[in-house]
Amino acid sequence: MPPPVVSFLSDYGHGDEFVGVCHGVIARGCPSARIIDLAHGIPPGDVQAGAIVLRDTLPYMPAGVHLAVVDPGVGGPRRAVALRTAEEERILVGPDNGLLPPAAERFGGAIEAVDLGDSPISRTFHGRDVFAPAAAALASGAMLADVGQRFVPATLVRLALSEAALSGDELHARVVRVDRFGNVILDASGKQLRELGPESLSLEHAGRTHAVEVARAFADVAGGELLVYEDAWGWAALAVNGGSAAALLGGASPGEVVVLRRTQS
Amino acid sequence: MPPPVVSFLSDYGHGDEFVGVCHGVIARGCPSARIIDLAHGIPPGDVQAGAIVLRDTLPYMPAGVHLAVVDPGVGGPRRAVALRTAEEERILVGPDNGLLPPAAERFGGAIEAVDLGDSPISRTFHGRDVFAPAAAALASGAMLADVGQRFVPATLVRLALSEAALSGDELHARVVRVDRFGNVILDASGKQLRELGPESLSLEHAGRTHAVEVARAFADVAGGELLVYEDAWGWAALAVNGGSAAALLGGASPGEVVVLRRTQS
Amino acid sequence: MPPPVVSFLSDYGHGDEFVGVCHGVIARGCPSARIIDLAHGIPPGDVQAGAIVLRDTLPYMPAGVHLAVVDPGVGGPRRAVALRTAEEERILVGPDNGLLPPAAERFGGAIEAVDLGDSPISRTFHGRDVFAPAAAALASGAMLADVGQRFVPATLVRLALSEAALSGDELHARVVRVDRFGNVILDASGKQLRELGPESLSLEHAGRTHAVEVARAFADVAGGELLVYEDAWGWAALAVNGGSAAALLGGASPGEVVVLRRTQS
Repeated sequence: MPPPVVSFLSDYGHGDEFVGVCHGVIARGCPSARIIDLAHGIPPGDVQAGAIVLRDTLPYMPAGVHLAVVDPGVGGPRRAVALRTAEEERILVGPDNGLLPPAAERFGGAIEAVDLGDSPISRTFHGRDVFAPAAAALASGAMLADVGQRFVPATLVRLALSEAALSGDELHARVVRVDRFGNVILDASGKQLRELGPESLSLEHAGRTHAVEVARAFADVAGGELLVYEDAWGWAALAVNGGSAAALLGGASPGEVVVLRRTQS
Repeated sequence: MPPPVVSFLSDYGHGDEFVGVCHGVIARGCPSARIIDLAHGIPPGDVQAGAIVLRDTLPYMPAGVHLAVVDPGVGGPRRAVALRTAEEERILVGPDNGLLPPAAERFGGAIEAVDLGDSPISRTFHGRDVFAPAAAALASGAMLADVGQRFVPATLVRLALSEAALSGDELHARVVRVDRFGNVILDASGKQLRELGPESLSLEHAGRTHAVEVARAFADVAGGELLVYEDAWGWAALAVNGGSAAALLGGASPGEVVVLRRTQS
Repeated sequence: MPPPVVSFLSDYGHGDEFVGVCHGVIARGCPSARIIDLAHGIPPGDVQAGAIVLRDTLPYMPAGVHLAVVDPGVGGPRRAVALRTAEEERILVGPDNGLLPPAAERFGGAIEAVDLGDSPISRTFHGRDVFAPAAAALASGAMLADVGQRFVPATLVRLALSEAALSGDELHARVVRVDRFGNVILDASGKQLRELGPESLSLEHAGRTHAVEVARAFADVAGGELLVYEDAWGWAALAVNGGSAAALLGGASPGEVVVLRRTQS
C-alpha cells in the first residue's frame, strides 16, 4: 500500500524554517507520511491567491490530507478547521477564512467539518502547533471527529473571488498574480477569452494601450511579442514569447485592472 | 520501522544545485533515508543565525541525523565534525565553527564527537564531499567512530550568541533576523519582554521612535499597527498586523540595535 | 529494494505551483517514487545553464529517471523526448532543445530515444502534461518504447556550449552563472586555469581591471580579497573570501566576457 500523502500549500516561503518545521511535526506524528510541497510562494497573507492555486492544483495531487495555511488572522477569532469532501474523501486542513472551500467544491464540497480548537502553545504559528499536528493525525488514520468538534459545513467562511466581466467588446479583468516567468494571470476564464473573439485585441493597463495577439502557445507569436492565452489551469493570462509580460507592462500587481478590447476591423 | 531521518539546514538557498546534490549524495549512501529540509535560507555565512535556528527548531524534528552546513571557513583549518547528544542520541553533523553546540545543548550537550577529516575532492563544497557522505553513513547505522577520529567534545568551538540586556526601563536588543513576513526577531527573550512590563512601549531604532503595543497575536492590534510579541520560539519580535515591521522601520538588518522603553504614565 | 528515484531539474523556481504539481503527477503515476529536487533555479529559459548544471550534477544522483525541464519552446515544434544512456541505463526526460545531451554524454551517450508526442491538454505546461507523466511511467518500469515513438538518438538537438579560449598570456572566458554566494562561474576549466599558470593574475571585466589570486579555498586569501579557483565541478570561478565576487565586480551577468591575464613579473 502506498504511504499516506500530505500535500502542503502555504505563504511561508522557502527562506525561513516554517515549512521545514511543519515537515518535522508531520513526520513525528505520522512517520510513514509522504509530504508534497504544493506551493509555498503564495504572497504573504493573500488568502484569495492561495484559494485559487489550491482549487486549481488539488486535482493533480494524490488523494489524501491537504494542508493549506495562508492565515493572516492567526491567533485571532477565526476557526482552525478540517473538512472532508463528498468525492474522493479528501481531507482539507487549514484556517476557516475562505482558503479551503473553492478547492473542496472541486470534489463535491465539504460534507463534514470540525473545529480544531485553539493552540495550547503559540498564537502566531498555528502551522506548527495546530494544523500540522492535525494533518499528521488524519494521515495516520484518525477520523475528523477524533481531532475536533463537528460543525455544519455550510457555516464555513467563503470568499467572493474576483471575476472578470465581459461586456460588449470589452473584457474587464483583474490581475490575480504574476508567475516566475512574468506571465500575468487574470481573473478571466479561457471561455470568456474565446467569447471575446478575434485574434487580435488591444490591452489597456495602467493608462497605456498595447496590441496583443490571442494565441495558444508562447511560440505562436514572434519573440518579444505580447500574447493572451488560456493557461494550463483554464485562465486567461498575458505572456511575452521569450520574455516577461509583467516587465513589458512596466509591472503588474494583484488587483490591478486590465481591459481587453476587440479592435475595429 | 520508520526510515532513518536526516534533517538538513544550510545557507545554500534554493536557487542553486547545492541542496539537491547533497540530497543525491545522501540518497546514494542511504537509499532508505528520509530527508527533511529544515531551512536553507540562513543568510550566507551567518553562523550565528544558523546556530539559533538549528537550536530552536531541532526539538520539532524526528530524532536522527541532523546535517547543518553554514561554513564560511570551508577548505580552511576549521574541523568538520559529527557529534552525539546525551539525550535522544541525536547525531549532529557540520563544521566546527559554533553552529552545532547550541542545538546539542537542547539535548544535554555533546557526549561524543569525531573529526571527519578533510575532503579528498573539493575545498569549496564540503556539503557534498564531507558532510553529506558522513550523514548518509550515520543514517545507515555507522557509529561515530566509524566515520572520524574521536576528540574531546569540550574542545568544540562555541559562539558567544548576542543577548539583549534589560536595564531599568530599557531593553537593549539587537536584530537577529527578518522573516518573510517582515517580522523582526530580536535577541531578547519573551521573559525579558514580560519583565519590561507595561502594555505600551516605545521603540527606538535607527534614530527614530515608534509607539509599540505589547501583544500576543497579530490581530490583537489594529491593522497596520506595530506590536512586539513573544514569538513561537520564545523570542521577542516586532510585527505589524497585516503588514511588515521591517518595512515600517525602513529596513532592519541583523546586528542593528533597537531599544524598547517603558513609556511614562 | 530501494524505491525508484526521479530527479528533477527545471527553471520553474520555488515560488509558484509548477514544481509541486509535477510532484503530484509523479506521485499519482508512481506512488513509490522518491523525487529529488536537483535544482529549480535555472534562469528562466536558459537552456545552456540548465544543460551545464544537469551534466555536472547527474553523477551525484542515484541512477533512475532524470526529469529536466527548461523549455522556452513549449507548445512549439520542438520534440518532447526520453532517452536511455549507454552506461548505468539512466533515463533522461525533457525537451529536445539541447538540455539533455551533455548529461547523457557523461554516461556514454544516448543509445535509445523516443518522441513523447504532443500534449492532449495544455500547450504551455508540458512539465505537468507530458514530462511528469512520462517520468512516472518510466519510474514504474515502463520501457521507452511504451511511452513514445523511437527515433535515432543522433538526431537529438545539440547546443554549442560556450568555452573559454587560452591564448598566450590570456584566458578569454564568459560568465556562465552567479550562485547565491556571489561566486561567478566561468566557462573555463580548472585545467585551463592551471595552464595559465602563476599565482597572481589580473582580471578584466566591464572595462575595469582587478588583481586576483589563484587559490584553492576561499580562506586561502584575506577577507574581502578576490580569488579565482577551480570549483567543485571543475570550473574556474571567481569568489571573494567572506563576500560576493559579483558584488565586487559591480554585477556579473551570463554571457559577459572576462579576461584573466598573467601579470608581468
